[in-house]
Amino acid sequence: MSQQRPGGQSGQPGAVPALPDLPEATVARLPEYLRALHNQAEAGHDTVSSEGLASAAGVNSAKLRKDLSHLGSYGTRGVGYDVALLIEQIEYVLGLTQRRAVALVGVGNLGHALAGYAGFATRGFRIAALFDADPSRVGERINGLVVRHIEDLTEIAAAESIAIGVIATPAGAAQSVADQLVAAGVTSILNFAPCVLSVPEGVDVRKVDLAIELQILSFHEHRKASLTSLPATGPAGGLTALPGGLSATGTEEAVGT
Amino acid sequence: MSQQRPGGQSGQPGAVPALPDLPEATVARLPEYLRALHNQAEAGHDTVSSEGLASAAGVNSAKLRKDLSHLGSYGTRGVGYDVALLIEQIEYVLGLTQRRAVALVGVGNLGHALAGYAGFATRGFRIAALFDADPSRVGERINGLVVRHIEDLTEIAAAESIAIGVIATPAGAAQSVADQLVAAGVTSILNFAPCVLSVPEGVDVRKVDLAIELQILSFHEHRKASLTSLPATGPAGGLTALPGGLSATGTEEAVGT
Repeated sequence: MSQQRPGGQSGQPGAVPALPDLPEATVARLPEYLRALHNQAEAGHDTVSSEGLASAAGVNSAKLRKDLSHLGSYGTRGVGYDVALLIEQIEYVLGLTQRRAVALVGVGNLGHALAGYAGFATRGFRIAALFDADPSRVGERINGLVVRHIEDLTEIAAAESIAIGVIATPAGAAQSVADQLVAAGVTSILNFAPCVLSVPEGVDVRKVDLAIELQILSFHEHRKASLTSLPATGPAGGLTALPGGLSATGTEEAVGT
Repeated sequence: MSQQRPGGQSGQPGAVPALPDLPEATVARLPEYLRALHNQAEAGHDTVSSEGLASAAGVNSAKLRKDLSHLGSYGTRGVGYDVALLIEQIEYVLGLTQRRAVALVGVGNLGHALAGYAGFATRGFRIAALFDADPSRVGERINGLVVRHIEDLTEIAAAESIAIGVIATPAGAAQSVADQLVAAGVTSILNFAPCVLSVPEGVDVRKVDLAIELQILSFHEHRKASLTSLPATGPAGGLTALPGGLSATGTEEAVGT
């Protein structure tokens, strides 16, 4: 059996089989595969080749096959992967079969945007509570939820079984909020504040830095400018323009770097 | 000379030397190194070891040395890297020595948050124009900029030398906005809309999907739950809990996967 259904214990609450210790880079790619698979399913495809799925997810197919082999999914030669089954396997591994309750702290513009982000609800998450430290924000209703004061965090986190905290506060407040989330038993934090958080072992933090994406695009703009300006200026600094490869989206990640 | 100053032609407008064709994964890590280096500089450090810089940026030091070798930076044995020089080199390669003009399309909650994101201005970008298709939004002033109608995009993109377009519209409008950006000469797009964009060759698109970060955290929540529930349920599916390694933030990316 090339694609085993996961666990088979979904009917037993609390009976969660241990998960393999996947490489972090594989974990980071699983959501991309999942999104590509949902697109395949919506387009009416029952199976997908590793090449087709890899292309849709923007990775090379050898990497995709290696990633999925960690889940015990090898596909069927000449047929490919069963789309519905692979969705089920990835959702199981990512823990998306239960809707996780998320607490969002900081309801400025970014917090408002996140509270209303339809992508969360459709991808296995439920914004269960909103918090702010500003008394003038407390009581405001956003997408059906009332903003609570950060002082109520511990009580509400327990009542709502909050698993994940999202920090959308200014940088100066973020560490204090992280401390309060950890004290309330939250063990996963998504940090949008532009600062590094210090948390105890066993707490996972992921940082979203919106400027980093722009800096990566800036490299490609810079590179395109350097190539197109060559005829006028000639090669400089001993570097010569490399042929082709202008488009970065098709560039494969270097293996082993 | 282990760290060469880049180009040396910054005084000559238009004279941009060709850049090396860096692996995409290296390009994606350069902003992380840059942020860590700025922290080192702010802390008053003139030099940093490859281990220290790697740790601050969350990668292993072999990968960091390989990445920086692409820039011609090898550091000095026993001393490390010159912080100021390495900042200059990375900013040069990323094209951050000129402030790139960014057009932001869609001024809903997310657009508002992005327009006010201080991280852009301090990292080499200038939000030069805001657009929306909703007439009731046009004319609104956000952070000193007046929202313009999307119909004015071509004219303003030329006047402001817009290099990068940021799409913060609903998914349904994103492809049309991308087409208009491309028609206006924009060759780099950062897409926050939850959809895949189709663009001509030579146009770079990066997609930010806020739910993917939550899904990665969900894996770690799921994994922690599976480990802590083991004493009650016993090993299942032939998998055994692996010792330690609960914290993902310390997990190194697997090399070669």
